Amino acid sequence: MSMLLLGFLVMLLLLGLVIMLLFLGIICHVIVVVCMKWSCYWHKVEHPLDPLTVAEILIVQTVLKESSRLGTANSNVLHYVVLELPEKEEVLAWLPGNPNLPRKAMVVMSVEGKPHKLIVDLKSKRVIEDQIVESSGRPPASFEELQLGLTLPQEDPRFLESIAARGLSLSDVLCLPLTGGWFGIPEEEGKRLLKFQCFDTNGTVNFYMRPVEGIAILIDLDSRQILSYYDRIKKPPVPKGEGTDYRLKVQQPPFVTPLNPISIEQPQGPSFKIEGHQVKWADWEFHIRPDPRAGMVISRVTLKDQTQQQQQQDNKGHIQRSVLYEGFISEMFVPYQDPSEGWYFRTYFDAGEYGLGILALPLQPLDDCPANAKYIDAVFAAPDGSPYVTPNMICVFERYAGDISWRHSEALVQNVQVREVRPKVTLVVRMVTSVGNYDYIVDWEFQTDGVIQVKTGLTGSLMVKATEMETIEHPTEDTSDGIHGTLVSENTIGVSHDHFLNFYLDLDIDGPKNSFVEGKLARKVVQNSKFGRKSYWDMERHTAQTEEEARIKLTLTKPSEFHVVNTNKKTRLGNPVGYRLVPGATAASLMALDDPPQMRGAFTDNQLWVTAYNASEKWAAGFFPSQSHGDDGLAVWSNRNRGIENTDIVLWYTLGFHHVPCQEDFPIMPTISGSFQLKPTNFFERNPIVKTKPNFGQECANST
Amino acid sequence: MSMLLLGFLVMLLLLGLVIMLLFLGIICHVIVVVCMKWSCYWHKVEHPLDPLTVAEILIVQTVLKESSRLGTANSNVLHYVVLELPEKEEVLAWLPGNPNLPRKAMVVMSVEGKPHKLIVDLKSKRVIEDQIVESSGRPPASFEELQLGLTLPQEDPRFLESIAARGLSLSDVLCLPLTGGWFGIPEEEGKRLLKFQCFDTNGTVNFYMRPVEGIAILIDLDSRQILSYYDRIKKPPVPKGEGTDYRLKVQQPPFVTPLNPISIEQPQGPSFKIEGHQVKWADWEFHIRPDPRAGMVISRVTLKDQTQQQQQQDNKGHIQRSVLYEGFISEMFVPYQDPSEGWYFRTYFDAGEYGLGILALPLQPLDDCPANAKYIDAVFAAPDGSPYVTPNMICVFERYAGDISWRHSEALVQNVQVREVRPKVTLVVRMVTSVGNYDYIVDWEFQTDGVIQVKTGLTGSLMVKATEMETIEHPTEDTSDGIHGTLVSENTIGVSHDHFLNFYLDLDIDGPKNSFVEGKLARKVVQNSKFGRKSYWDMERHTAQTEEEARIKLTLTKPSEFHVVNTNKKTRLGNPVGYRLVPGATAASLMALDDPPQMRGAFTDNQLWVTAYNASEKWAAGFFPSQSHGDDGLAVWSNRNRGIENTDIVLWYTLGFHHVPCQEDFPIMPTISGSFQLKPTNFFERNPIVKTKPNFGQECANST
Repeated sequence: MSMLLLGFLVMLLLLGLVIMLLFLGIICHVIVVVCMKWSCYWHKVEHPLDPLTVAEILIVQTVLKESSRLGTANSNVLHYVVLELPEKEEVLAWLPGNPNLPRKAMVVMSVEGKPHKLIVDLKSKRVIEDQIVESSGRPPASFEELQLGLTLPQEDPRFLESIAARGLSLSDVLCLPLTGGWFGIPEEEGKRLLKFQCFDTNGTVNFYMRPVEGIAILIDLDSRQILSYYDRIKKPPVPKGEGTDYRLKVQQPPFVTPLNPISIEQPQGPSFKIEGHQVKWADWEFHIRPDPRAGMVISRVTLKDQTQQQQQQDNKGHIQRSVLYEGFISEMFVPYQDPSEGWYFRTYFDAGEYGLGILALPLQPLDDCPANAKYIDAVFAAPDGSPYVTPNMICVFERYAGDISWRHSEALVQNVQVREVRPKVTLVVRMVTSVGNYDYIVDWEFQTDGVIQVKTGLTGSLMVKATEMETIEHPTEDTSDGIHGTLVSENTIGVSHDHFLNFYLDLDIDGPKNSFVEGKLARKVVQNSKFGRKSYWDMERHTAQTEEEARIKLTLTKPSEFHVVNTNKKTRLGNPVGYRLVPGATAASLMALDDPPQMRGAFTDNQLWVTAYNASEKWAAGFFPSQSHGDDGLAVWSNRNRGIENTDIVLWYTLGFHHVPCQEDFPIMPTISGSFQLKPTNFFERNPIVKTKPNFGQECANST
Repeated sequence: MSMLLLGFLVMLLLLGLVIMLLFLGIICHVIVVVCMKWSCYWHKVEHPLDPLTVAEILIVQTVLKESSRLGTANSNVLHYVVLELPEKEEVLAWLPGNPNLPRKAMVVMSVEGKPHKLIVDLKSKRVIEDQIVESSGRPPASFEELQLGLTLPQEDPRFLESIAARGLSLSDVLCLPLTGGWFGIPEEEGKRLLKFQCFDTNGTVNFYMRPVEGIAILIDLDSRQILSYYDRIKKPPVPKGEGTDYRLKVQQPPFVTPLNPISIEQPQGPSFKIEGHQVKWADWEFHIRPDPRAGMVISRVTLKDQTQQQQQQDNKGHIQRSVLYEGFISEMFVPYQDPSEGWYFRTYFDAGEYGLGILALPLQPLDDCPANAKYIDAVFAAPDGSPYVTPNMICVFERYAGDISWRHSEALVQNVQVREVRPKVTLVVRMVTSVGNYDYIVDWEFQTDGVIQVKTGLTGSLMVKATEMETIEHPTEDTSDGIHGTLVSENTIGVSHDHFLNFYLDLDIDGPKNSFVEGKLARKVVQNSKFGRKSYWDMERHTAQTEEEARIKLTLTKPSEFHVVNTNKKTRLGNPVGYRLVPGATAASLMALDDPPQMRGAFTDNQLWVTAYNASEKWAAGFFPSQSHGDDGLAVWSNRNRGIENTDIVLWYTLGFHHVPCQEDFPIMPTISGSFQLKPTNFFERNPIVKTKPNFGQECANST
């Protein structure tokens, strides 16, 4: 009897145990699932500039719903939900270990067709600011609105007719958003517009090579209506799909002679540390923040200076010197150079109209970044306010390309045996954004000699125009006014265009108070020298007093250097400490100043500008570039002509590319690169490379 | 008895055996020593452009001795002993496997002060040509003559006095050859001259930072006499040596935070083949020839074209298309921009006055080139005609820098999952020449998309000027006319200067008959467009008829593309096949056209020139730049204004750098790089990268 009772009790105990284990299992499973979904983005904020977390975005969403701004009318769309940056002074005063600064979110949303800018306090969970943004420009299309072209036209009889007239199958046709542009047409004023261009996806994933030319669909994003539709009478054929598919798996021989595997290897692992969003490498420290509009923002770039013996002793070798407060791509302007009906309006502002971060896709390990790369995820907010994660949006890796940062051998003096070499190892921070057909690779590269090189690569595939033309020997009616590019395949014109990438560079050389010095290299004539030398050049330094004096058009015949110096701090020799901008990819806009696209992209009127720091001046083509009239942005701010000497200043540099396509750009476009450098110039007392050690390659030399 | 005899015989036998073995040993030893000395350079010549072998140079030496041109008078000095290139037509007609073309050597030597150019036939072992070179320029100093400054001054009382007056120890002072320059001084006419500058080697191997300012020693190389000597009354102090030594072993902490080892790895080895001097990689084939003057010459660059389906079938996939017949650095002009007595003449022509190959030292494996590099040795002739080997003068390696040659991800179309990436792997051919204080890194980089990128890196240490000045706050008398540079350390001025590297580029796009097309990007105004677009740009192609029409000064406001096309061959679309030059490092000379240095370096009057091919026109500053009056060279040839349409043409492009030194250039100079590209433009029917396979990094990913 008692035995039976005992057995019963044991069974009960076991049963309980099993249930308990099951329960625990379920909890674990739930935790894991949540973690997977949010990549555990509930992490605590470690730095005042850290981006909004999943938790914080959820707070914003709740606050907006509770204040019945969200989830009421369909038309309420969130365009931006980002960290409202603390005052620069506060951030500069903040030190690691300090309590974090108050966290706020900045929200840009459309409420009944009006763009609102809100500030949400994340602690009190309240909207503490709500104002309507007055601007000729309109808020950007949401990711979901960009896809209206996939559905709206399909219900329009005119569209069905156009497709039928071309003998295409509706299910194959895909309409993608182009920019609306702005050309002063009254009935378009004040509306949020996108023009859609259609492509035939039949037989290729590379549908960009198969434009359905002649159709233009203008969609009003607020009313979600097709505002205007037209189909040209002349209908050039859709270029054939054969041979346009670029996927490796569909390629047929012959192949380019294949190469053996190759890789950058670090047997002891990388030398950098990523703590939250803070990166430490060699003597560099900086902060990375994913941003829906700029893609990524590099902030608080500082450098430990090992060259200042004196200060070394004072500060136990911990002199972290300031170089750059904040740097990012402020706008990307891509005007096409074909004035015809279907093309004249193709003048894109990729950052402000789409968002470089929103269009960034996960990087492909081992292909987009080498084997030794580490990755950073991004957390953004969807148009409905719910957070989502873009995994592997940014990668960080050390680059060794077989290059040399410094070397010297002694040839002329036999008894001196000098064979000194320091291989060049750098740190690269990379993101890639896929803006439709184009992929933009953005690299911030940090060198041990204090140089920061910013490099952009343009790849993907072309935006092409269909034509009746099959070879240039046989001109056709639709090319009577020129082909405005190059015939890159049968019935396919690669249309000429530009890329202008404007970089916001808030340099703070040893503090915010800096000056801009243009060093002009000028020829000097020697009057009857007794040695026979008749000329030489010398550098004339000119400190810009006002924003007007710092509008620079680059020239080769009258070259200049461009220095940002801190006149309040001198080297031991009396040279003002500074960095200089070394330009690259120097193409300037060739459009007329009164052309609407140029008015909107007026930041390309000059290649280099300097403005007085103003927290609200961040986007070179204005806060809302879509359909703007050019009444906001860098050119307007510069016209205030503020004083810029010995004060907090911002450099704006535009990397420019003219692109006349060629057959090598079909069916895909190989990477074109351009870069500029921020280079220490009398910033260090002496060259820091002397204080670097060569990386002993032999320790991993197992390949030969 | 017989036993004793037997024993005796055996002993004899053993003794003989020992002697025989010893003898064999000695023979082996001798063979080994010879092999070591010549690195077994008795190899057979495999290609008409292969450089002279040890055997061939020995033949030349013998022939010259037997014809009593050598070894008779001291003054007979060999300046160049190189392969006399076969006619271009012959080389083009030659195919691998054919019997090699007749081998000849070209010799430049001074006989009784007169420069002779000889042709030695290596088969008949006879001098078949001997002519005096008529030119205002003089033959370059031999390596041995460059070192006259180490001995001659030491015997001159004036020099001993100067050194004593400065309280320096004679054994510490080293005098190095600067250029003689030419400024029309009658008593210098016709002589072979070098000016020597002295340095104090006390306390540092980086003696370039310790100039003994104020002394100038002019030496006549033929008479081996000091032609003129002066010592300025004002004697600025010799800058101190402390902290100038750059050797790793003498560095003290603090160091830049060290990095973990990093390396480019290829577990299956490199993908390229070096057969003799012929290199094969991916679809590229080309020939490398070390040259005492140019450093290295890249010849017969061809490419297997995988994009021409039609021809594929015809030719079993073996279409080796011609791109470049020959490319090399034709001259390197380095004018300093200080007109004062000790500096006005410092206007170097490094290739013609010294020889980039002669001054090239062995590359340091793992530091100068990565672990996966292979090396090529050079064989040159000493001034006395005896051959010598420069081991590891050139390296060849595959580069993977984590870059992307093409990629595309699809963001806007949800149902299309595109994640295609092709990492960028290239082939680099590198040499480094140490011209005194400067080290020049020269890279020829070949890409799988058909691009050839030529990159030069400038490093080493500055040429500095001693001054009384210690800080710029306290001007001194010796800087009253300006410092002509930057105070980079106490008593040390980094003098401003330029570097102009002229590249000889004999492009042969699908054959020698090419044309030069300038594509001018010009703004077009749209008259009252009904769409509101007011302007665009278009490319206007202009084919240069004459050499005059092809003298290009680069401008940014009126940009152009520079195409070399073969109008006799069109793509299937009718575009003429071609390559284009994409400029970089675009600094132009700022000196006056009538300034003697500029007259001699007149090839820098334009950045780009095109001339009709002429085998004798190779060196942009003339055959003998030393003390030349500018009556030979590119500018002179171009003035003939020959026709250049649809004929064999040569492109001349100058990479230019203005260098205003800064404290970061002291005590060593970090590498400054510049490059240009030769880029296929309608050369391929379509982009070849589609036909490349990604290198599967994971196969060697053991670092993470």
